[in-house]
Amino acid sequence: MTNPPAAPVDLDALRASVTRQGALVRGLKQNGGAAEDIKAAVDELKKLKVQLDAEIAKQGPETDTLSKADKKAMDDLLIRKMFVVPSFEIYGGIGGFYDFGPPACALKANLLRAWRRHFVFEDKLLEVECTNLMPEVVLKTSGHVDRFTDLMVKCTKSGECYRADKLLEDHVENFLDKNPNLSAEEVEKHRLHATMAESYSPEEIHNVFQEYGIKAPGTGADLSFPIPFNLMFQCQIGPEGNLIGYLRPETAQGIFLNFRRLLEYNAGKLPFGCAQIGNAFRNEISPRNGLLRVREFQQAEIEYFANPKDMRHPKFNLVAALELSLLTKTNQLTDGKTVKMTCADAVAKGIISNESLAYYLARTYLFCEKIGVDLKRLRFRQHLDTEKSHYATDCWDLEIKLTSGWVECAGHADRSAYDLTVHSKKSKVEMVGTHKFDKPEKRKIVEIKPNKGKMGRSFKADLAIINELLEVLKEDTEKALAFEAELETKGEAVIGPNCDGKQFTLTREMLSIQVVEKMVSEEKYIPSVIEPSFGIGRILTAIFEHNFSTREGDDKRGVMSFAPVIAPIKVSVLPLSSNAAFDPFVGELEKIFDEDDLECKVDTSSVAIGRKYARADELGIPFNVTIDFETVETRTVTLRERDSCAQVRIPISDIGAAVRNLVKGAQTWQDVVARYPTVAAAAEE
Amino acid sequence: MTNPPAAPVDLDALRASVTRQGALVRGLKQNGGAAEDIKAAVDELKKLKVQLDAEIAKQGPETDTLSKADKKAMDDLLIRKMFVVPSFEIYGGIGGFYDFGPPACALKANLLRAWRRHFVFEDKLLEVECTNLMPEVVLKTSGHVDRFTDLMVKCTKSGECYRADKLLEDHVENFLDKNPNLSAEEVEKHRLHATMAESYSPEEIHNVFQEYGIKAPGTGADLSFPIPFNLMFQCQIGPEGNLIGYLRPETAQGIFLNFRRLLEYNAGKLPFGCAQIGNAFRNEISPRNGLLRVREFQQAEIEYFANPKDMRHPKFNLVAALELSLLTKTNQLTDGKTVKMTCADAVAKGIISNESLAYYLARTYLFCEKIGVDLKRLRFRQHLDTEKSHYATDCWDLEIKLTSGWVECAGHADRSAYDLTVHSKKSKVEMVGTHKFDKPEKRKIVEIKPNKGKMGRSFKADLAIINELLEVLKEDTEKALAFEAELETKGEAVIGPNCDGKQFTLTREMLSIQVVEKMVSEEKYIPSVIEPSFGIGRILTAIFEHNFSTREGDDKRGVMSFAPVIAPIKVSVLPLSSNAAFDPFVGELEKIFDEDDLECKVDTSSVAIGRKYARADELGIPFNVTIDFETVETRTVTLRERDSCAQVRIPISDIGAAVRNLVKGAQTWQDVVARYPTVAAAAEE
Repeated sequence: MTNPPAAPVDLDALRASVTRQGALVRGLKQNGGAAEDIKAAVDELKKLKVQLDAEIAKQGPETDTLSKADKKAMDDLLIRKMFVVPSFEIYGGIGGFYDFGPPACALKANLLRAWRRHFVFEDKLLEVECTNLMPEVVLKTSGHVDRFTDLMVKCTKSGECYRADKLLEDHVENFLDKNPNLSAEEVEKHRLHATMAESYSPEEIHNVFQEYGIKAPGTGADLSFPIPFNLMFQCQIGPEGNLIGYLRPETAQGIFLNFRRLLEYNAGKLPFGCAQIGNAFRNEISPRNGLLRVREFQQAEIEYFANPKDMRHPKFNLVAALELSLLTKTNQLTDGKTVKMTCADAVAKGIISNESLAYYLARTYLFCEKIGVDLKRLRFRQHLDTEKSHYATDCWDLEIKLTSGWVECAGHADRSAYDLTVHSKKSKVEMVGTHKFDKPEKRKIVEIKPNKGKMGRSFKADLAIINELLEVLKEDTEKALAFEAELETKGEAVIGPNCDGKQFTLTREMLSIQVVEKMVSEEKYIPSVIEPSFGIGRILTAIFEHNFSTREGDDKRGVMSFAPVIAPIKVSVLPLSSNAAFDPFVGELEKIFDEDDLECKVDTSSVAIGRKYARADELGIPFNVTIDFETVETRTVTLRERDSCAQVRIPISDIGAAVRNLVKGAQTWQDVVARYPTVAAAAEE
Repeated sequence: MTNPPAAPVDLDALRASVTRQGALVRGLKQNGGAAEDIKAAVDELKKLKVQLDAEIAKQGPETDTLSKADKKAMDDLLIRKMFVVPSFEIYGGIGGFYDFGPPACALKANLLRAWRRHFVFEDKLLEVECTNLMPEVVLKTSGHVDRFTDLMVKCTKSGECYRADKLLEDHVENFLDKNPNLSAEEVEKHRLHATMAESYSPEEIHNVFQEYGIKAPGTGADLSFPIPFNLMFQCQIGPEGNLIGYLRPETAQGIFLNFRRLLEYNAGKLPFGCAQIGNAFRNEISPRNGLLRVREFQQAEIEYFANPKDMRHPKFNLVAALELSLLTKTNQLTDGKTVKMTCADAVAKGIISNESLAYYLARTYLFCEKIGVDLKRLRFRQHLDTEKSHYATDCWDLEIKLTSGWVECAGHADRSAYDLTVHSKKSKVEMVGTHKFDKPEKRKIVEIKPNKGKMGRSFKADLAIINELLEVLKEDTEKALAFEAELETKGEAVIGPNCDGKQFTLTREMLSIQVVEKMVSEEKYIPSVIEPSFGIGRILTAIFEHNFSTREGDDKRGVMSFAPVIAPIKVSVLPLSSNAAFDPFVGELEKIFDEDDLECKVDTSSVAIGRKYARADELGIPFNVTIDFETVETRTVTLRERDSCAQVRIPISDIGAAVRNLVKGAQTWQDVVARYPTVAAAAEE
């Protein structure tokens, strides 16, 4: 009797172990854990990584993304057909800048129209367009001036700069290539540095650079100590040179700045959402991966403002039963499984923190469906607690599987009241919503009666800080009562410290505090914000990869199977030859499609019809209308569907409506096939 | 017998005299005319200006723009309804930056869609989207780094900067206000400085500043000598700090850089046009006049590439008979009259330099008609020869009459081959079109046979320059033959100088030249460029001013009569009261309009219907659908047209199609009135 074959090790579970152990290491470091604990945790992490890599090698590569050959064919097509080309190409180009040529420009315009239709129009959101240039005060207040950085090292000879983590990753890869005979354990020790590169502190990564003796590429000279490099482009506004401006690193801030006017425009009613589509700029140290990491890109963002005490969404019932693929923070730290769950369940179980956040995950899912992202290669991954921005209370990334792995293409953050709070504080402009009760409610109100003269004489310039601290005290009935009791018994009490660590001793004569019950009819609050944020270039990359395939012909032909609603060109008109006899018929067809606003491309060149189809397929034209001598005679056309290559014969009087309804989704290709006689696809090759 | 009343002096003619005299003064200055000639010309200019001002005062103000009261009401509406608001308002704002709120954001999106439909879609142009940030080499080559400047003076105490010409204008105005008893001649002397401010050289304007003793506003301190200030925003690309970038001051350059790929995309065929819609940035020293002079704005530009030897346009026949209002350069210098002339005539008479340029003037006119610019307040003004950019061979501005005068809202320049030539030279990338002859033609070809060894030894590094000079020689058969003759007779000849003033003596042994006749089948050329260029913010300003009016009601109510095609909201649904009984009916109507992609706004508030109409009118909603208890019962609605306030009763089953066809322009309001019973407008106030 032989042993049964071993069940394949569960890769998800193994990945989760690595994630969990990584989180543990980060946690220990953040909380200043003992050196030996950290070392032990790191050793364990190493072991797990070795195991995972070995398993991946054994089970073979995953096959749900483009093959290397197809990826190459696609990249070639994208540049050859002028979808996306390097900017300033005739001057040698600059990393991280791309231009959109005619087909991608139209594709993007259609994608943005679909986005606007789906998110803005259907939900009656507001929309604004704010400036790309912003003064320093805005981005200082938002935290970008201080925190929007990557670690950078500089060649002491040439002055060239490198992103420290990427340089380390590349170095480790090269090192392992050049040393093929290392033991598995040694390999793992090196690989760990690459894995950890992004989360090292300046000191840590500097030590690793020393350990390896990493020098500047090219020159071989020493590298500087790593320093944080701010990713915002800075310039001067106005001629004086004393007003610093930045190109916005995200579109969100403009919406926050306009909150008060937007609320007024919305007749004072909350919740409401406001969208903005526009450019954002990040001075990446090492741009790479085509449109995935660029220096200038387009965002489409929504800020949905709501009462933090009531995060229900009025249209949640429409998506409650929708199933989403969720990779929760818990699962990332346990079995690593992505689970399918309805929005209603996820909210009920507290996995997604509230209805409004869940509503937007669902809407994003439905949007992906409309624009032709493969729903099997899509998941929502929750941020780990150790990974979240300081202001976010919950955050879910839309991740799409591409050849470069799972890529974040949209974020959905519950930013709480962070943004409005900081801008309101800095600008001294109140940014609040008002919740009107159905009927007046009884509330305990803290009333503070200060002796202004005494306070003023004692504290002078500090009075403003004390007043702020008293405002905070007002919000907590218990604390206020305790403070009053202390004043009463000890004659004095300490208030503070505030965020700058300042505290003050107040005396009995300076103030008295009481708590009274009052009937109130409304309550003010700083709204919480749910922020769905889309990187348009990344979504486009997903659309390219998920819709590209090759078809065997005389040579391998690329096909872009864009969803008709976003296809840059909806229909092509292809006379069988360049014979002038076809011209009037071509003109007639063009007019028909123009009247329906259907972008149409005519190919009257003399190449064979198969070649014309191939050209149309490369541009992703979903419907092709062919005319030959027979169809001219019978006033019909041959209509070919791009993906199936199936063909039907249709009277010219019907062709406008047929294509219009196919593009709108008002009828399917099957409907058309059922209605009109099919034609053998003889001309295909 | 009394004298007949004097005929009013012709203001146009008087204005033309001023223009003509101004051009003469500029011409004299540019060509270094004698001081006494310039003085005489300037004195004459002064006299004419006095005369013109007196005439304008006598004949009264022109009345075809908004009254001061209406302009104020409009500006108030624009900000109150969040069309256009100052950016960073909560932090005090910064001159020259504006945000577009929900109604203007939608209006602009619709305007751009109409632009794209009209210019790109109907003429099958290409479209690209290039980056906002560009490296220095691009803008150095285009001439912007050296020449895109305004004169600036700086306060020596505070460092604050002022645009010199504007400061002078303001100073003169104040000076005249404070000195009301000056003689007419003295007044005119001062006013002339204001008129000439923009065209003074740094030295000239400095002298005028000295004459007046102009000091810095506020501080009263001395001002610096005027220096040219470059209007481009500069920043660093990448972390090294050695790659200077600029925010583009116009969208045009990105198209030129992509010319070669665009030509390839267009299967090598010329002529073709390429459009780009996007932001441009200018660091104005003194931004003013709302959206008319801002630091960040949107452009929509077309570069139409054609063979300079054949500037016919394939669709010219469609516009040949269209009459345009032209203010030619000749008329500006003679009688000052704007003339009406067909495009065909204007081209035939050589007034507009070619068909392609005239075609675009006509297309711009038709676009203005579509979007609701008042065609009576629109003209095309040709640039004077003294005013044109160095590269332009002909240029016509679309000027629109606004409260601030005639404002340039679009330009139409024949830029000749300037842009492609400079970028091609700098980048060493060939940018040419190919004209294939119908049959081969006989051509004289200059052939140069160099002795490369001899040349190389004699000139070494200068050989490249000599080769360039020889390439130029090749293009002129006569000169080439003369050169060869000189070599033959004298044994040597001088070639050059080139643009740097270098010249070289070549000898008989170094080369021989002959001219041969050859049959050639094609000819290469650097395409000429026609550039229609729209300032979207200025067009929007024109739309606001030309569509705003006030209507008497309980109080004066503003109405925005936007053309339905660009109106931000197409239809409002207005139940007579906030009674919940209307809710299902409102929902039904919303669904009907949503399905037709008609932006719809519901007002269920409890205010009177007259107030709801007023709100809708302020947002420029062209159609209002009212429901009351009677209409609910009969399943009808009342449809009100914004501009006439007329109302009809329509069955709910017809309302979707009725509004859709009104918005598309497929039917007029008269058609609707003819078909359905009218309703008295009792509810209007």
